[in-house]
Amino acid sequence: MTEHSLWRFSRALHRAINDRHFQDIESLIDEDVDWAVYGPIDMFPFLGARQGRRAVIDVIRQVADNFRVHRFDRENIMLGVDSAASMLRYSLTALDSDKPISLRVAQFAQFRADRLINMRVLIDTFDLVEQALGRSIHLPKLTGVV
Amino acid sequence: MTEHSLWRFSRALHRAINDRHFQDIESLIDEDVDWAVYGPIDMFPFLGARQGRRAVIDVIRQVADNFRVHRFDRENIMLGVDSAASMLRYSLTALDSDKPISLRVAQFAQFRADRLINMRVLIDTFDLVEQALGRSIHLPKLTGVV
Repeated sequence: MTEHSLWRFSRALHRAINDRHFQDIESLIDEDVDWAVYGPIDMFPFLGARQGRRAVIDVIRQVADNFRVHRFDRENIMLGVDSAASMLRYSLTALDSDKPISLRVAQFAQFRADRLINMRVLIDTFDLVEQALGRSIHLPKLTGVV
Repeated sequence: MTEHSLWRFSRALHRAINDRHFQDIESLIDEDVDWAVYGPIDMFPFLGARQGRRAVIDVIRQVADNFRVHRFDRENIMLGVDSAASMLRYSLTALDSDKPISLRVAQFAQFRADRLINMRVLIDTFDLVEQALGRSIHLPKLTGVV
């Protein structure tokens, strides 16, 4: 039984972010990959939609420039033949400020011939923004909520 | 072939929120359900973790008191025998302000004997907060981002 594409991709991604080793991850991304990580791109320019391997590698380089992954726990996982969905909890450090950031992420990936062709990532972005700012944002209680 | 638990649950959930019909959804939730919707509970008290059917039904009632679902598109879906992961885009109205809210959500569900026993939901919460406030929150560009 061969290893699921997700495990190979996940190892290569973390090696790229932490060790700036981009060769493995490049070989695991389809030239025509369709990629989106939803979130506020004004604050985090590496979020948003990207088309094609080169654009995605640029994003991964920017993430590597800004963060280090300390650990991640896969809280939920579903594997299909060529697809995977998981919910993860990441412990990161923001490199410029040395701030610890703890982040929950949901990831839907599709592979073709062992290469990533589609990736959609959802982040608990309000939590991310508050941690990156280093302060909480005052929120009113929603009117009408019982 | 019987229908996957997710479809029945999804129909009952939307019927509860829009028509305040809670009987169907109650019969599809395990007494000992483990439930968490991650997000800022100060603004949205119905977010957060809940244990047990009664607490979850209370949450669904609070959502029904505050929102109406106009439509939802399932952008990604993975089904296991007793589990499901999906990414959805919701179009809602906030009932107190009549404000339209468009929301991306990732949902991981586990069922046992057709009843929900575990639910984890991740929301693009910064987007949600800005829409609920009706204004954008100024964000600095993250220092060090190339």
